Amino acid sequence: MQNAQAIAALTSLLGDRVTTSKSDRDLHGRSETHFPDFPPDAVVYPTTTEDVSRIVEICAEHDCPVIGWGTGTSLEGHTAAIRGGITVDFSRMDQVLAVYPEDMIAVVQPGVTREALNTELRATGLFFPVDPGANASLGGMAATRASGTTAVRYGTMRDQVMGLEVVMADGQVMQTGSRARKSSAGYDLTGLMVGSEGTLGLITELTLKLHPVAEATAAAVCAFPSAQEAVQTVIETIQMGVPMARIEFLDAASIAAVNAHSGRDDAEQPHLFIEFHGSESAVAEQAEIFGSIAAEHGGADFAWSSRSEDRSALWAARHAAYYAILQSRPGAKAVVTDVCVPISQLATAIDETIEDIAQSGLRGPILGHVGDGNFHAILLIEPGNEAEKSAALALSERMVARAQAMHGTATGEHGVGMGKLDYMAAEHGAGWAVMAQIKRAMDPKNILNPGKVIRQN
Amino acid sequence: MQNAQAIAALTSLLGDRVTTSKSDRDLHGRSETHFPDFPPDAVVYPTTTEDVSRIVEICAEHDCPVIGWGTGTSLEGHTAAIRGGITVDFSRMDQVLAVYPEDMIAVVQPGVTREALNTELRATGLFFPVDPGANASLGGMAATRASGTTAVRYGTMRDQVMGLEVVMADGQVMQTGSRARKSSAGYDLTGLMVGSEGTLGLITELTLKLHPVAEATAAAVCAFPSAQEAVQTVIETIQMGVPMARIEFLDAASIAAVNAHSGRDDAEQPHLFIEFHGSESAVAEQAEIFGSIAAEHGGADFAWSSRSEDRSALWAARHAAYYAILQSRPGAKAVVTDVCVPISQLATAIDETIEDIAQSGLRGPILGHVGDGNFHAILLIEPGNEAEKSAALALSERMVARAQAMHGTATGEHGVGMGKLDYMAAEHGAGWAVMAQIKRAMDPKNILNPGKVIRQN
Repeated sequence: MQNAQAIAALTSLLGDRVTTSKSDRDLHGRSETHFPDFPPDAVVYPTTTEDVSRIVEICAEHDCPVIGWGTGTSLEGHTAAIRGGITVDFSRMDQVLAVYPEDMIAVVQPGVTREALNTELRATGLFFPVDPGANASLGGMAATRASGTTAVRYGTMRDQVMGLEVVMADGQVMQTGSRARKSSAGYDLTGLMVGSEGTLGLITELTLKLHPVAEATAAAVCAFPSAQEAVQTVIETIQMGVPMARIEFLDAASIAAVNAHSGRDDAEQPHLFIEFHGSESAVAEQAEIFGSIAAEHGGADFAWSSRSEDRSALWAARHAAYYAILQSRPGAKAVVTDVCVPISQLATAIDETIEDIAQSGLRGPILGHVGDGNFHAILLIEPGNEAEKSAALALSERMVARAQAMHGTATGEHGVGMGKLDYMAAEHGAGWAVMAQIKRAMDPKNILNPGKVIRQN
Repeated sequence: MQNAQAIAALTSLLGDRVTTSKSDRDLHGRSETHFPDFPPDAVVYPTTTEDVSRIVEICAEHDCPVIGWGTGTSLEGHTAAIRGGITVDFSRMDQVLAVYPEDMIAVVQPGVTREALNTELRATGLFFPVDPGANASLGGMAATRASGTTAVRYGTMRDQVMGLEVVMADGQVMQTGSRARKSSAGYDLTGLMVGSEGTLGLITELTLKLHPVAEATAAAVCAFPSAQEAVQTVIETIQMGVPMARIEFLDAASIAAVNAHSGRDDAEQPHLFIEFHGSESAVAEQAEIFGSIAAEHGGADFAWSSRSEDRSALWAARHAAYYAILQSRPGAKAVVTDVCVPISQLATAIDETIEDIAQSGLRGPILGHVGDGNFHAILLIEPGNEAEKSAALALSERMVARAQAMHGTATGEHGVGMGKLDYMAAEHGAGWAVMAQIKRAMDPKNILNPGKVIRQN
């Protein structure tokens, strides 16, 4: 009833940029992974910050939930309208507002995707490095504190977002951060918003750090006799101070799926996919050091690609791994795990996980951003098969418990959403209550993406 | 009266680790810069987290202010007991608790200084990079979000702190973060605490990132015809993707003071002090690229030091610059400014500042962390000379207004404390009210370092 009043008010404001059509609601209620559908009562398409501010004001007046939506590629049910309400689809706020080449900064609207930004930057010699695989929106990536293959070198969204414009729970617009590279001017509200999953405000503009495109790039794949040897290669490379731009682990099962999907013929063994960025001579030196460390750990079938097409094909194959794994069991859905552990514990964590998956009877290839200690098992389940789903969720829970016991985290980059809520008490202790205090202070009516990150009535 | 009751209760808890002696109170009430003295009613010396928790509990019971204290080197009056209360001196919590070389992590108590940590790390091949000049405590550096000469390469305390143990306003102990390199598990409480200046909690333990000591290091000083040319050299070097480990600007007046203090004889012109870290060949290549960019901008008198003693002397001279400048006017105190601007605006900001200082009749050498766009004018004033103090504060205010108009910040690394409070409304707008909401939620009695960062009764 309340929500219906909100929709009526929104319709007088936005006209046909409010829709309650079943197809649109269904699309925005769907999850990329195993969660049930939770369609919102309506979807709205703002084009300006002023629109978003008015939308939130109206929703606040009617105690109606408001859920931000970028491209729908999040993996923990972040955009599920579990209490109904309004989904704010940012796809029409997709402008790169400004690029400041000398400051290596871009100012963008939240609906700009990372690929669109990099296309726009082509002539500048600069690029935006964060690469979670999916062509996600930058607003969504900030909201979930996304990272991906390049975080080992360039950091996560936390490191790349210099400032934000945010619509708060009462519709007020707040600016955080600045265009200065650093600041000590009070609490880090930018950092607080990044990773808050739309529960503290809706991001309407981002100021992002850019990086110079490297003079030279070299990429390679390399097979290893075991996960242990692959991970040890990575640890030693990091400790030599050799800056890897990407360093990805794929287990034998992932390689099999990628081979089938992308027409590659890598040996069905654990692999590292690696990339270096730098000057010609630096990249050559780094590749040589890495090669000799890998050789000590049984690394074989080494092939460096310096041609840009070969590298693109290599990373396209890596990025397609999730879909390749899904397709390896036709019709399957996935429970995607996302633990991150101190790198000294990584080989053990991966070995124990492979063993655990084998005993569970499930299929679950493993891949990961191994320079960060972050890895995913893609646990394949048949939709509607409750036994498989329970087995997968139980396995995920054991992975999380092991990671937390190793002083790691339940989620390295996917976020909490609905999927990791159960693990937050163990992960944060008293800190989870502090998060709830902050949420209550900033969104007293609990209208912003309710039921995500923290539990609250 | 309330505070007296708190002191009595603390004395039964801690015995002679509570002191109300005038000398100890005076020492802890003193400021490094121009602020008047504000001694606390007592100083306590905890040795454990449990002590700190009980101290805060007792203070909460008696509505008594609690102020954290590391080495007293902060520059904005952060530790001034402006409403009296208890200063918690962390100097006896000075243990490096653990070093995990494979994970490149150290766990330390807050009273460990950055130099003590690096001494402890000598055998590991690792180091802690953040270097604000003063041998500050790591707890204090986290509390003020310190940075300094190496931030251009390694980032600020925000980037180096992976997790914290914090005693909250009710005495509860909270753990934030983990030993994993990244996490998306909810709000970034670590980031919220870093830079909160003791107003949201007292830091009792830090988990810090370490970095491999570079195989090779090269440092140099180079004179330029103008600030503009020096800054342009830095911009072009950054845009080439050449990673500078330190890049410091000193104006002619700073060089004169450093020459007199450290027995150097650099030309009295604007200078860059620079350092590269990497492999032998990478450092050589970087130095060559930098050298050729500098030459195009009139850089002269270039001298590379690859000997470690020469480099130490060079950076010792740079670190002594603040004291060298103070001594250039015997008996003087300083108003230290700390603006940070987008680097494209830096040369203009420096030029306008030099002009403004010249017109003010004050002496104020300028130096800065020019790779970050951060610079300081050390405005020298005679203690008790109110006309000079007003002129210096007015000049500081104009510098801040210019920086904010350039989309920069009032404080790059010193923090808000008492000194930058007046500029927070202009800097943050609605965000400053959000900071106050967070403060009220986490410290409803306003006992934690009251009157700093935000204004609140």
